[in-house]
Amino acid sequence: MPDVFDVIVIGAGPAGENVAGRVTRGGLTAAVVERELAGGECSYWACIPSKALLRPLDLAGEASRVPGLTVSDLDVGDVLAWRDEQVSGYDDGGQVGWIDSVGAAFVRGSGRLTGPREVEVVSAGGETRTLTARHAVVLATGSSPVIPPVPGLAEAGPWTNREATGVRSVPERLLVIGGGVVACEMAQALHGLGAKETTVVVRGDRLLERVEPFAGELVARSLAEQGVRIRLGETVERVERPVPGGEITVHLSGGDVLTADEILVAAGRHPATRDLGLSAVGLDDRGPVRVDDSMRATGVDDGWLYAVGDVNGISLLTHMGKYQARICGDVIVARARGEADDRPGMRDRADALGSPQVIFTDPQVCAVGRTEDQARSEGFEVRTVEYDMGAVAGATLLGKGYAGRAKAVIDERRKVLLGVTFAAPGAAELLHAATIAVTASVPLDDLWHAVPAFPTVSEVWLRLLEAYGM
Amino acid sequence: MPDVFDVIVIGAGPAGENVAGRVTRGGLTAAVVERELAGGECSYWACIPSKALLRPLDLAGEASRVPGLTVSDLDVGDVLAWRDEQVSGYDDGGQVGWIDSVGAAFVRGSGRLTGPREVEVVSAGGETRTLTARHAVVLATGSSPVIPPVPGLAEAGPWTNREATGVRSVPERLLVIGGGVVACEMAQALHGLGAKETTVVVRGDRLLERVEPFAGELVARSLAEQGVRIRLGETVERVERPVPGGEITVHLSGGDVLTADEILVAAGRHPATRDLGLSAVGLDDRGPVRVDDSMRATGVDDGWLYAVGDVNGISLLTHMGKYQARICGDVIVARARGEADDRPGMRDRADALGSPQVIFTDPQVCAVGRTEDQARSEGFEVRTVEYDMGAVAGATLLGKGYAGRAKAVIDERRKVLLGVTFAAPGAAELLHAATIAVTASVPLDDLWHAVPAFPTVSEVWLRLLEAYGM
Repeated sequence: MPDVFDVIVIGAGPAGENVAGRVTRGGLTAAVVERELAGGECSYWACIPSKALLRPLDLAGEASRVPGLTVSDLDVGDVLAWRDEQVSGYDDGGQVGWIDSVGAAFVRGSGRLTGPREVEVVSAGGETRTLTARHAVVLATGSSPVIPPVPGLAEAGPWTNREATGVRSVPERLLVIGGGVVACEMAQALHGLGAKETTVVVRGDRLLERVEPFAGELVARSLAEQGVRIRLGETVERVERPVPGGEITVHLSGGDVLTADEILVAAGRHPATRDLGLSAVGLDDRGPVRVDDSMRATGVDDGWLYAVGDVNGISLLTHMGKYQARICGDVIVARARGEADDRPGMRDRADALGSPQVIFTDPQVCAVGRTEDQARSEGFEVRTVEYDMGAVAGATLLGKGYAGRAKAVIDERRKVLLGVTFAAPGAAELLHAATIAVTASVPLDDLWHAVPAFPTVSEVWLRLLEAYGM
Repeated sequence: MPDVFDVIVIGAGPAGENVAGRVTRGGLTAAVVERELAGGECSYWACIPSKALLRPLDLAGEASRVPGLTVSDLDVGDVLAWRDEQVSGYDDGGQVGWIDSVGAAFVRGSGRLTGPREVEVVSAGGETRTLTARHAVVLATGSSPVIPPVPGLAEAGPWTNREATGVRSVPERLLVIGGGVVACEMAQALHGLGAKETTVVVRGDRLLERVEPFAGELVARSLAEQGVRIRLGETVERVERPVPGGEITVHLSGGDVLTADEILVAAGRHPATRDLGLSAVGLDDRGPVRVDDSMRATGVDDGWLYAVGDVNGISLLTHMGKYQARICGDVIVARARGEADDRPGMRDRADALGSPQVIFTDPQVCAVGRTEDQARSEGFEVRTVEYDMGAVAGATLLGKGYAGRAKAVIDERRKVLLGVTFAAPGAAELLHAATIAVTASVPLDDLWHAVPAFPTVSEVWLRLLEAYGM
C-alpha cells in the first residue's frame, strides 16, 4: 500500500465512508483511517442497535392497539440476538469490504494530523506510519459522550449509549441522566426490556428540548404511562458506588436519594477532536472543527482540510453527516480536477434550514426545519397551525387510542413552510414529505394540490392546510 | 326547511359532503340529498371497512417478521367487531350531524334532475319534493360495481365490495373476479380471515394493471405465498347456483370448473348516473358526467351543473373526489359572489398529473403520477431508476425478510419526477413525499438537499437519486 493518497479520511463512520465513496467514484485515490470499527458509532453503538431494540417494542405497542391480535410478552433473548445480528456481531468485515469495494484503502489505527496534508497513524500494536494527501484530509471522527463533572459519577462506571445499546443483562433499576434523544429512546427501550425501575433525571423543564414543546410532552406522558419515572428540573449532585458493579446511590439536587443498578449518562456529545493533532495545523484542539458550506475547515492555509459529520458540530445526525460527506467528496473531486466547485449539490443548504430528525420513541417524533420559537427569534413573520392526528381517518384505522399531534410553522411573507413536527406512533415515514416541502420551499398553493391518499395518516397535511384557511 | 337553496348537492359521500362544507363556509345555503347513508360508499362499504379488516392482518404480517414477538392467531370476531365500529354500525347519525354542523340541510331521498337548477327528491315513503338551486347543482352520486354479463352470474347473487367489506360469515371457498384494487385487497382480507380456498380469476396477464408492472408482480407473489390462487388470462364463462345461497359452480374459459361458496365481483365500477335525470338537462344518461377543470359539467347552458367524485369518471378515489369537491365548492362560491374564480386552488391540477393511490395489500403499493409506459406514450423524454427497498438500512430494521421495490420516472428535459411507485410493507406513508415532489415539480437538484432521516425507509429517496447519478 502506498503512503501517498489523493484523499485521506480519518474516521470510517458513515460520514467518512461516504467521503471515500464519492472521491473514489470521482477517480481519486483514498485511504480511510479508523481506530475502532469501520461503520462507526451509528452502526454498532447508536442508530442501528437502538432501533433494533426499539422496533419489537414499537410494534408490540402498535399491536396492542389493534383488535383481533394478541401479542405475547417480548422474548428479550430474541430481541438481543436480533440486535446482535443488526450490528453484525460487532464485526466490521462487511464495512471494510465495502471500503475495499469502492477502491479505497482501509488503514486500521489512530490517525492524527502532524502537519499540512500529513497524517500519522498508530496501530494498536504501536506501529507508526505516515500518510500524505495530495489534495485533502477529511476529519470524520464523530463525537463522544459528555460525562458531566458530577462527584463520583465517572468513578461509578456509568453507561453511555454504547453500553445501553449493547445491553446483555438488563438492570432492574436504571437511572438515566439527560432528557434528549438518547435518554428518551434508551429509557423506553431498556424499560420495555425489563428495567422495572427506570428513572429519568432531567435538568431542564421538559424532554427533547430541541423540538416543539408538545412533542416532548407527548413523549413524557407516554413514558410515564409505560411506567418510567421522569424527574424534571433536577440534577444529580453526587454518586456513590462503593463496590464496583454493585448498587449505586444517587443524590439528587432536590434532596432525594435513589438507588440504581446502572446509570446511563445521556447528557450530550462533544466533537471527537482529542488527540487529532488539530493544534499541529493551527486549530483549536477542543473542537468542533469549523467549516464553510463546502465542508472545508476555516483557518487552514491552502484549504486542504475538511470536516464532516459530528466532528464539525453542525448537526449530530448520521444522515446529515452523510449528506455533508457527499458534498465534501464531490467538492474535493471538483477542486482536484480544477472544475467548477459550486454546482447545486456542492453546498450545504439543508443544515441551515433545520435538519430533519426522527426520534424513535412511542410516539415517534419527527421534525424538520425551524420550531416556532426558532423562527420567531430569527425574525420571520410566523403563523402556526396544529392538528390532532388522532382525528385523521387514516390514523383512526391504525388502532384504538391512536394519538398524535402535528404542527406546521409557516413563513407568512413567502407562504412556505419553515418547519413541521409530527409526534405520533409510527410517524417516521411521514417526515420526508415535510423535508421536501421545507427544503425546496414548496409554496402552500402547490402543497394544496398534493392530495394525500385516503385513508392514510398523511391526510394530516390536508387538515393542516385547511386549518391555515385554505 | 325551504325548498330553495343556493346549492343542491346530490350524494352525501365524501365528495358531496366536502362541497357542502366549502359552500356553506363561503356563506351560501346548501342542501345535501342522499338516498342511502350520509358518508357514502367509502365510509360503510369501501375504504373504511376494507382497511379495518386489513389492518390486523397487515400488522400480524409485520409482527411475524420481527424477532422477539409472537402474535396469536387472529380473532376473527374481534376483527369484525372492529370493522363494525369503524363503520359506526352502518348508522349515519354522525355524518348527518356533521352536515348539520356546517349549516347544510340534509334531505334523505333519491334526487334527480327535472330541469335547470331543479331537483326532485323522492323519499323512501314515496313522498316527492322539488328543490330549486339559486346557483348550482352538484352531482356527487359516486359509482356502482360493474357486474359482467356472464351467464348465470347475476342470478347467483354475487358479492360486490359491499358484501365483502361487510362480511359476517367468511366463506370457506371464495372466487374473486377481477385483478384490480378491490380484488387484491379483499382476496387478501378474506383469505386472511378464513377463506381457505381463495381463487382470483383475472382476464389480463397481471394484477393491478394501472400501476407499474413490478408492483402487481410483488402483490401476486405475496398473495400466492399467503395461499391465494391466482389465475391470469382467464375469464369466467358461466356460473351456476341451482340452490340460492348454495354451492356455486364456475366454468372458466380454459375449461376448468371450480366450486365456490361465494363469488366476489371486483370488475370495475361505473359512474352512478342511472335515474339521475341527466337527459332532462340534455346530457347522456349513461355518464360519466363530463366536467371542465373547475368541475363544471360541459354542455349545460348557463353552467349551473357540476359533478365531483366517481360520477365524473376522472379518478375513482375518495381523496380525489374530496379534492375535486374543494375546488368545486370554492368555485361555486366565487362565481356566486362574482369574484375571481381562477385562484390557485380553483382548478384541478392533480388529476392530470396522475392521482396518488395507496393499495393496502401486503406489500402496500403506493403510486403517484405517470407510470413509465404512460410517460413514454405521452412523449416525455423518460429515464427511470429503481431500487431494492430491502437494501435500505431503515427497512432492514423493520424485520427479517422485508422486501420491496421503488421506481421513479424522470422527465429528462425538466429534471423533475413524473411518477413514483413504492411496493413494500407498510409503505403507505411514504407516498406523500412523492405526491409533493410530482405535483409541485420539485427539481431533482432540490430533492438532493431533502435529506431522508436515518434510519428510515425514506432513505430510498437518496438511493434513487444516487442511482440516477447524483
